[in-house]
Amino acid sequence: MLNLRLPGPTSCPQEVLDAMSHHMVNHRGPEFAALLKNCGEKLKPFFKTQNDILILTCSGTGGMEAAVVNAVSAGDKVLAISIGVFGDRISKIAKTYGANVTDLKFPMGQAADVDAIKKALEADPSIKTVLVTHNETSTGVTNPLKDIAAVVKSFDKLIIVDAVSSLSAVACDVDGWDLDIVVTGSQKGWMLPPGFAFVSVSQCGWQAIDQCTTPRFYFDLKKARDTQAKGETPWTPNVSLMFALGVSLDMMEKEGIDAINKRHAEMGAYIRSKVKALGLPLLADEQVASNTVTAVGPFENGFEPDAFRKILNKEYNVVLAGGQMELKGKIFRIGHMGWFTKEEIDECFDAMAKTLKQMDYKV
Amino acid sequence: MLNLRLPGPTSCPQEVLDAMSHHMVNHRGPEFAALLKNCGEKLKPFFKTQNDILILTCSGTGGMEAAVVNAVSAGDKVLAISIGVFGDRISKIAKTYGANVTDLKFPMGQAADVDAIKKALEADPSIKTVLVTHNETSTGVTNPLKDIAAVVKSFDKLIIVDAVSSLSAVACDVDGWDLDIVVTGSQKGWMLPPGFAFVSVSQCGWQAIDQCTTPRFYFDLKKARDTQAKGETPWTPNVSLMFALGVSLDMMEKEGIDAINKRHAEMGAYIRSKVKALGLPLLADEQVASNTVTAVGPFENGFEPDAFRKILNKEYNVVLAGGQMELKGKIFRIGHMGWFTKEEIDECFDAMAKTLKQMDYKV
Repeated sequence: MLNLRLPGPTSCPQEVLDAMSHHMVNHRGPEFAALLKNCGEKLKPFFKTQNDILILTCSGTGGMEAAVVNAVSAGDKVLAISIGVFGDRISKIAKTYGANVTDLKFPMGQAADVDAIKKALEADPSIKTVLVTHNETSTGVTNPLKDIAAVVKSFDKLIIVDAVSSLSAVACDVDGWDLDIVVTGSQKGWMLPPGFAFVSVSQCGWQAIDQCTTPRFYFDLKKARDTQAKGETPWTPNVSLMFALGVSLDMMEKEGIDAINKRHAEMGAYIRSKVKALGLPLLADEQVASNTVTAVGPFENGFEPDAFRKILNKEYNVVLAGGQMELKGKIFRIGHMGWFTKEEIDECFDAMAKTLKQMDYKV
Repeated sequence: MLNLRLPGPTSCPQEVLDAMSHHMVNHRGPEFAALLKNCGEKLKPFFKTQNDILILTCSGTGGMEAAVVNAVSAGDKVLAISIGVFGDRISKIAKTYGANVTDLKFPMGQAADVDAIKKALEADPSIKTVLVTHNETSTGVTNPLKDIAAVVKSFDKLIIVDAVSSLSAVACDVDGWDLDIVVTGSQKGWMLPPGFAFVSVSQCGWQAIDQCTTPRFYFDLKKARDTQAKGETPWTPNVSLMFALGVSLDMMEKEGIDAINKRHAEMGAYIRSKVKALGLPLLADEQVASNTVTAVGPFENGFEPDAFRKILNKEYNVVLAGGQMELKGKIFRIGHMGWFTKEEIDECFDAMAKTLKQMDYKV
């Protein structure tokens, strides 16, 4: 078996994988309707929301596109906060669909600065919407979303959140923090294979959607909401994954959201301590380091993270992620979201220690 | 077990369902790259093409949206041929994205008339693109696509084909008929669960895509092509379904495209003969009746197809599809695409005969 230490796809419990091979049913029949309704309801406590949560057959990026094309019109003034690749991606989606985007970028490895966001909103009252990532997968940093949302809402702006790699592992209080559109992906904190985006929409979010003029069809969230209320999806959904979602949500309900958050927080701290014990550099400031993915590097001593990952994969069946975009070849990343055991993590670090020795790594 | 007689999702072979529960792997690693390349190549003979075939994580409708947003610009003159719900849907997608659509509609149960298409193209030389369904799932009619394409190409127009419920069950000679963009869905003729659209793009298609100004991101086909060439997908794909696709393509390769087409043709004829033997009306003209889905009705004697379907489902585990849109409550539909056995079909008809008797159906 692989020790899959990616920030998605993640390993899944056997019960979940077994559910993936469920025989097909009528996606417009009563059995599927009951499953869909059950899943829609059971997702809510993990988002800490009473909002509608829509289940879309696409990746997390598809979910982010849905958020943008439903709520941002061409010409809308938008503030795009970015602390890495996925923050840049939301900005790119908004630009693609004609939004007038102001980029507010922070250095790789750091979180967004709340005061800088406040200043940007003060400087341009015409901004309608703020786009932000909760957890930046490319750098392993979790933004102070509660504080960011408080500032955004004090200016009465719409807030769209990429929570793809945070929910449900990291607390995201959708109603408490007044988040309008929040997107996550099945293959991250949900102990599931990829194939679904889950999208939460607030009342304020629906009002923005009502006024939005950007054309949309496959990703039409109002259609998704109205159809889901009738126990169906507008288009043929990923039926297999819905069965698996039913299983993973039951498991997660049993564990409880607080216990899940605690497990991830403890594992995040444990992994950072193990990285430091190996004498390796942590990319993220420790105060804002993510509890779902840890970025290690950059390396300035000639060490090649990609060569390191190749050996780990080939000789130890341990799969780490590399760096993306400008961090390509400069860092590696360890995923620890969704379903994992301490044994797997320890095995991963044992293999890392052996490989470092093999590569004659000098601290 | 259900006797699932829908025009998708369809029942899947156990080997395919088993593959759905494959453990997760790195979607940016060598194992997945080899699988993706293999699947991309093995899809080609079923499309009878040398074109790139892109594998998108979405439903068939998502694939049709991809075709439209990549190749049709706002303001483009488009001829949308419709013989039912799915023909109407392509037209709706094109209108959503600002195309200037001329609708050419034919009565439910009939195929498109090639002469009428010719006249429409003669009447308006500004038409750039023709949209057409190969197999209309809502009425169980297969369009004479070869003849339609010959006319469209004699006017040198781009042709976009919804082959969602025809490929690979019904012959679709993409290169021989010079089809530019052809879309199908995994849950139809491919013996797979839903979750993928497969999209074939010709050289002419890529030229149109190069010139198209409609914004796209998740469904960007050039990005899909360039990333797939490197053994990856732009966004996290449905990894489970890729493993299942590998299995189904191996099975289909073994059976062979001609044998698959023949099996569907024979089953189509057999089912129509069984429907007639029960004294039930066929919606489609027999010359153009589909070999993947048979529409039965409309009923003018007070018989309620939806009540009939409910009994079949509850008492016999046989699941038929109902009518859609204006045919809702007026017909039922029997799916026979992808993976099926004669025994299942016979059991379906036995159950139908018993239920008709139970309902005191008068021919």
